[in-house]
Parts: sequence; C-alpha cells; structure tokens
Amino acid sequence: MLLKSNPKKDFISTQEWPEEELQNLINLTEDVKKNPKKYNNSLMGKALCMFFYNPSTRTRNSTEVAAYQLGMHPTFNSIKDSWIGYNSESIKDTAHVLARYYDAIGIRIFPVSVNWIYKEGNRILREFASHARIPIINFEDDLYHPLQALTDIYTIKEKFHTPKNKKIVISWAYHPKPLPLSVPNSILLISTRFGMDVTLTHPKHFELDEEIINMARHNAEESGGSLTISNNIEESYEGADVVYIKSWGSCEFYGDPREEKKLRLPYKESWRIKEKYLEYTQTNSIVMHCLPIRRNIVADDEVIDGPHSIVYDQAENRLYTIKALLYYLLKESK
Amino acid sequence: MLLKSNPKKDFISTQEWPEEELQNLINLTEDVKKNPKKYNNSLMGKALCMFFYNPSTRTRNSTEVAAYQLGMHPTFNSIKDSWIGYNSESIKDTAHVLARYYDAIGIRIFPVSVNWIYKEGNRILREFASHARIPIINFEDDLYHPLQALTDIYTIKEKFHTPKNKKIVISWAYHPKPLPLSVPNSILLISTRFGMDVTLTHPKHFELDEEIINMARHNAEESGGSLTISNNIEESYEGADVVYIKSWGSCEFYGDPREEKKLRLPYKESWRIKEKYLEYTQTNSIVMHCLPIRRNIVADDEVIDGPHSIVYDQAENRLYTIKALLYYLLKESK
Amino acid sequence: MLLKSNPKKDFISTQEWPEEELQNLINLTEDVKKNPKKYNNSLMGKALCMFFYNPSTRTRNSTEVAAYQLGMHPTFNSIKDSWIGYNSESIKDTAHVLARYYDAIGIRIFPVSVNWIYKEGNRILREFASHARIPIINFEDDLYHPLQALTDIYTIKEKFHTPKNKKIVISWAYHPKPLPLSVPNSILLISTRFGMDVTLTHPKHFELDEEIINMARHNAEESGGSLTISNNIEESYEGADVVYIKSWGSCEFYGDPREEKKLRLPYKESWRIKEKYLEYTQTNSIVMHCLPIRRNIVADDEVIDGPHSIVYDQAENRLYTIKALLYYLLKESK
Repeated sequence: MLLKSNPKKDFISTQEWPEEELQNLINLTEDVKKNPKKYNNSLMGKALCMFFYNPSTRTRNSTEVAAYQLGMHPTFNSIKDSWIGYNSESIKDTAHVLARYYDAIGIRIFPVSVNWIYKEGNRILREFASHARIPIINFEDDLYHPLQALTDIYTIKEKFHTPKNKKIVISWAYHPKPLPLSVPNSILLISTRFGMDVTLTHPKHFELDEEIINMARHNAEESGGSLTISNNIEESYEGADVVYIKSWGSCEFYGDPREEKKLRLPYKESWRIKEKYLEYTQTNSIVMHCLPIRRNIVADDEVIDGPHSIVYDQAENRLYTIKALLYYLLKESK
Repeated sequence: MLLKSNPKKDFISTQEWPEEELQNLINLTEDVKKNPKKYNNSLMGKALCMFFYNPSTRTRNSTEVAAYQLGMHPTFNSIKDSWIGYNSESIKDTAHVLARYYDAIGIRIFPVSVNWIYKEGNRILREFASHARIPIINFEDDLYHPLQALTDIYTIKEKFHTPKNKKIVISWAYHPKPLPLSVPNSILLISTRFGMDVTLTHPKHFELDEEIINMARHNAEESGGSLTISNNIEESYEGADVVYIKSWGSCEFYGDPREEKKLRLPYKESWRIKEKYLEYTQTNSIVMHCLPIRRNIVADDEVIDGPHSIVYDQAENRLYTIKALLYYLLKESK
Repeated sequence: MLLKSNPKKDFISTQEWPEEELQNLINLTEDVKKNPKKYNNSLMGKALCMFFYNPSTRTRNSTEVAAYQLGMHPTFNSIKDSWIGYNSESIKDTAHVLARYYDAIGIRIFPVSVNWIYKEGNRILREFASHARIPIINFEDDLYHPLQALTDIYTIKEKFHTPKNKKIVISWAYHPKPLPLSVPNSILLISTRFGMDVTLTHPKHFELDEEIINMARHNAEESGGSLTISNNIEESYEGADVVYIKSWGSCEFYGDPREEKKLRLPYKESWRIKEKYLEYTQTNSIVMHCLPIRRNIVADDEVIDGPHSIVYDQAENRLYTIKALLYYLLKESK
C-alpha cells in the first residue's frame, strides 16, 4: 500500500473520507490483524492524547493496547482532571497546546456533556480540529462513531468476503434510556457507502435525522446499494445477512427524556430483539451490536449468545481498526 | 525453574493454588528481586488491564512499575470511567471483550462497592474469571488479598530464612471503621499453609468466618504448623517472631457500621498496639502491617517506626511479588 | 555538561537552587529541544510517580510525553484514587512506600486542597521530600510553580538571547476568582535572579507576600537587575521587552473569596489587558502567560492571539524543561 506523506488529516466521520482511502483503511486493518508483528513499534516515539468526556470500555482499552503495540505512548485524560472540564480554558488554547506535545488527539464527547444541544459535540471536535495542527480522531461524539463504523464494515467484509449487495437490517431496539444517534448514523452511512442493501427499521417517531438519511440515499445511489426504511420489524429481518441491533432516542424530543420516554415505552416488548426474529434471516446471518448492551432488555441472551452472534469478534476488531488508523495517519511515507 | 505451557490460570486466592506452585512463586519472587535485569522486557508486547473499583496506593503503583519493567503496558481503568460502573454492561461482556485486547486483568473490589453483600466481590471476580480466557488477578476483593499474602510469606522467609515453625501472632487492632476481612483471611491462610505456629488474637465478637478458620486448621495440620486462637493480646504476643497487625470489622454486624461500632469501641485503648506489647516478643521479632495504617490509632508511632518494624520492606516486596506473578502467569514455556 | 553523581535533590522552588545549577538546567533544556534524539530512552527502566490533587493540562501532558521520550514510565495518580485522598494514610508512609517503587515523584497541590491554609501545600511537598529518598518535583503548589519559572526564563532567553537587563513587566490582571500566588511568586523570583529589570504592577491590595518581595529584592541586587513595584499599569508597560500577564488573589483575604471579591471587582475593566497597553512596550516585545487563561476577561483575544503573543511557544517549552529536569535529576554520571 502506498501511503502519502500525510498532511494533517482528521477522522471525524467516515462520510467525508474518499472511498479509496476508506478502502485503504480496511485493507490496512486486515493486514494489521494478519501480520501484527510487521507493525510492532512502527510509531515508536510518537504519543497519543486521549480526551474522554464520558466513560469507555472498548474505545479506550483497544486504543491503549493498539498504541502500545505500535510503540506509541497513550495518555488518558479524563475531562474531570482537565481545565476544560472546569471551564477554565478555551478549546482553542487546549488544542494548540496539546498539539505541541502529541502526534494525535482522540476525543469522546457525548450529548450529555453538551447539555443535549444537537450536534454541539461534533462542533467541539471540529473546533479542536481547526486549531490543532495534528490529527483529531473522533472517539464517538453526538453525531458519529467512525471507528465503530470502520470496524463494522471491516467485520462484515471479514465474514462475507465483501459487503457489496449483502442485506443488512439496521434494527432499532428498546432501551430504558434515550441513547445517542452516533452509532445508527455511522453504520447507516458506512453500509450505504459500501454498496450494501440496507433496511433501516424502527417504530414511528424514531426516524433518523433527514440530513443523515439524505446522505445515506446518496451513498446508496453512488455505490449501487439500496436503502429501504420500514416500521415493520419482522418483514425487515427477512433474508438479512447482517442484523445490526442498536437502540437510539427519538429526535422529536431530543434532550427531553421525560417526553421521549412516552414515545419509547410502547415498544418495550415488541422491539426487544428475540431469537425468533432471526428465523427470518439467512441461515448464515450474523448478529452485530457495538456493545455495551443491556441483556434481555435490548436483546435476549439467546440472541447475544446465540450462534448468529459475532459481537465479541466485532469488539475485538476495534483493536485492529484503531491500529490501522493510527498507522495510516501518523506513519511517514518512506 | 520449569514453567509449564500455561493454560489460563487465575490468582484469586492462594488457598486454591497447590503448595508447589506457591513455592515456585516465592522462589521466583526472590529471583526477581535479586536479578531484576534478567526479567527486563521479558513480557514485551503483552498488556495488563487494571480495573479498580476502589482506591489503591501500593497495589496500583507496584503493578504499574512491575509491568513496565517487564516490558508490558498497564492500563489503569477506574470504575468511574467504565460502563460497568454505570450498570450499562454485564460482567460477562466486559470480561469477554477485555480478554480480546489484554493478556491479564487485575481487579480490586471492596465490600463497599457491593453494598457489603458478603462475598459478592469475590463472586464478581470469579464471574470475570469464568468468562475471560485470560488470567484474572485479585487486586483485593472482599474475601482475599492474595498478592499481599504472597508478599507477606515471602517477606517472612526473607527475614527468617524459612517461615516453618516460626511463631506469628496475627493481631487485631482498633480502627475507627469496620475494615474488610481480606487481609486477615489471607495472612491466616498463607501462614498456616507454610507451617508457621499461628496465634490469632482478637477481642470477642471479632472472630473470623468459621469457614476460613476451618481451612486454616486444615492447612496447619497438613503443613505441620499450628493454630491457636486467643482473646488475650499480651499472652498472644509472647515469644512471637512475627507480629502481624491488622484491624477488621466484626462479622456479627457485617455491613451495619452503626451497630458494629458498639462492639469495637470498647477496645479503642487496649487494642491500640503499643511498644510495650513488643517486649513479650522475641528480641529479633519483626512487626508487619500491609498499610495504609492510621498512626497512633491502630498502632503507635513507636511500633511503626521502631526497630522491629519492617513495614516499608514489606511494602517494597509487593513490587517483586507482582512481577513474579505476571511472569509466572504470562511467560510462555521455552 | 558535567553531571555530578547526584545525591537526592528536590525541585520545590528555583530559589533554593544555586544559580550555576539553574544555568545548567537552562542549557540542558536548550540541548534537549535542539537534539531530542540524543536523550531518547536515556532514562530507560526508570519510573515517575505523578500525584495530582488538582486538574492539569500542560504539566501532566508535557510530563507524560517527556517521560515517555526519555524511556521512563509515568504513572498518573489522582488523589481521588489514592489513600491520602481518604485521610487513610500519612504522607510519611505514602512517601516512603512510593520511593521504593519509583525514581522520582511529581506532586501538584493547590490552595483549595489544603483549605487555603497559607503555605500548607508547600509544607506537604516538603514533608514528602523529607521522607522520600528520591527527588520530589513540584508540579505547582500554593507557593511556587518552579517548572513554569524555569520554562519562562528559558523562553525569554530563547527569544532575546539573554534575559540580562531586559525589562519584564509582571502584570496583574482581573479574573473572576482569586487565583493562587504560585506563578507570580515564581516568575518574580526567577526574573530577578537572572538580572532582569523587573516591574511588578498590580492594583492596591494585590501586593505579593513581603517575604517573597524581599527575596526578589535580594535576587536583583545579587544579579545586577532591578525591581520596581507600581500601581500604574500603563506606566509599568512602558518600554517592556516582556509582558508577563497573570492574575492572582489578594493576600489580605486569603481563603475568603467573598471579601476578596470586593477588592478585585473594581479592576474588572481597567486591569483586563488590552491591545492598546502593548503600544507602550518595545516593538519586538513578547507577551507571556502560563495558561489556562480566560479570554476577554483576563486579556483580550487581540493580546493573546496578537503578534506579540508567544503563549503557545511558552507552553511548548514546558516539554523540554521537564525533560531536562528529569534527565538532570536521574541520569547517573558517567
């Protein structure tokens, strides 16, 4: 693979990356997984700043291990121990300064940390990016989780050789809280990008943002895939190769959990993903979920632990994706 | 030393490890201390996940340094920054996923983090162990602190050449709060295991769990040691080679600090360990405590800083024990 | 440069270090910046304990990266995860034990963490130093921030070749809260030490501690510099080569924010540093601030982002200073 002498490049959403580069990332992920030793200490001397406004298991730990294997030093900064968390320093100054010490900055920021002001988390990431002369990596904001998307499309490719024209059902599920939109947005955008036949299914009131839907429609046209939206869960699962389970909150009452709950509660039973729904899918279908998952509330144990489930493989692949991304962003061309 | 090609092996209590393997660990600890360079970077490329529900000074810092010296990467996860801490993810899923990234997981969980439900912390560790395909290391739960026990028996061996038939008095002491049982349980089990003549002394109402006592009695029989239990502190110190000071709460009101305090308060003065108690011991006796200690409440400065005290040497040995354990668990056989 | 076989040496304030050694540190900082590769892994195998009672961006992150580049392992301990934070362990014991694992300990402790008992933070650092057999590094206490001072004097030297007889105005500025005295004390002491012509300007009631002023006067006499104190901000900026902006609280109501605020509030507008003040300074003057800074409250964007400002270069130099210091303290003589 040919790596260009990179100018600073941010990874804030997959949507703004050209397909060729995403393809390069996927191929690199595959190579990183197959030939780990080849990348050992390849980024020796470089350091990664990790900035978490919110909790993390997979993102933080996969990144710590990936950075270490590449020879990098990862520094975990909780917002609680930082001046930004105390409103004492502007993002501009923090970004400028950290960029003097580090080679990249990864940031996680959820809606709860921006008072559910729609897209404010993403805006903060872009503000970081506009000031830092080093790459900003989105560790999940309130709009996108591109590392998850990259992992997901890589995992689908790994299981089916190619995502092209495989049927994926992106299935809403019940959850006691209104969860962010980052993961459904991201899987929708990446799956339509890579030519999959996508069915998005959810109850009424749980439509994704029209702007995202429009991007996904455009993606599907470009890639030779398709996008269908349906409120009928059972029909939607019909013939699926990939079942992608994820809960999200209603945009209608974004940031208003009390009102939102009234919309969600009626679907507690019918949209808890059950084993029988999988009978509509292909016999070799795979069940994906980004985790964490509330068992027997979002989906039954029989689904998560059943023969279709590949959720742990999917989580493991997070390690290879972030390794590939760091290498791609930071390795100087030879 | 011959190391077997290890299948996954957990270190949750010393009691379930065969004596031969414990002996191997002690010998390895000695070698790690004497020949540190031999082990430098011997576990290069491996990563250790540290999971703390509760504060730590010795366990965390000795492990960080030990892992680094072995070439490993240690990741400190506070429960506050993890999804488990928010009840969002099952132990099963967390364990499965972390095991995909790491080579071992160390976990600290105190009674306070499981609402003082007796043995619940230990149960959680075992649940982690049942799901993770990598070793789980007990960084102190509500029943055991095996790394402390291993350090203690190694330290006794270091000071007296062998623990065999040395007299140890495990002495209760006053403390303003009802402390966990993990350390007294662990020193009792390891000292009886290695043939020491053990006197356990505490006021009435501060009996250890009968199940633990029975294990200790069995240990003493097997090892050729002995176990005496007494409420008379002065008699108990008579002729001791090792004075092991530790406070713990009464099992009678486990998790009920208000009622428990009434049992404890009468012993505030008489069970504060004073210099004069050491006069009953051997002239070359050693005073041990796992730290942290409330000075002049649990024991007087004259005891902690006096000529018998080896508490800092004991704390230092934590470094060699965890290095030895990591090496033992993770080094592939040649 | 000749490095002595160091006995333990603490870095708690620059004032107690001989000028020759400070000069050595500055020269080493310069070399570390110019020839980074020379120092790569030069402290391999050594470990640094970082102990933060309070938030940090620059100090923590520059130290993490510096330690890593030197081959060291840095461990970030938040007071929240440590027994000291729970009043469970004495400083004596913590210091003794950490010194058994680590090669140096850096500590940050602000007035808020010692209930604004004047100098108590500094006293705690010195208590650590009296017990630990390894160097204690001040990561900012309630009296001094010597790493900032060292960075500042190095930065001035970098920009003007030498600090000698350059005019620096250390300028108070408004801030919504009563900030600590550590930074103004430290820049005052280091600038007078290195022969600068120092003007300290602040409104009435914002005098620094007389003890510090006396040290500064003595420094100026020894070094051939000068010290002027003035309440007239515009006059003070006249002809300055260096404008050093910093807010601090009034000593008159130390630890009493309500009363202190009454003294501070009248200066909200007049002591917000504006672009026009810079017109009084030399055309090639530099504007410094240790950051974080509240923009358009302490100083206007036009000042911070303007052509005189070197605040990001100053922040970057923190990296080289801590690298130099660690090397100086821990590198064995050849």
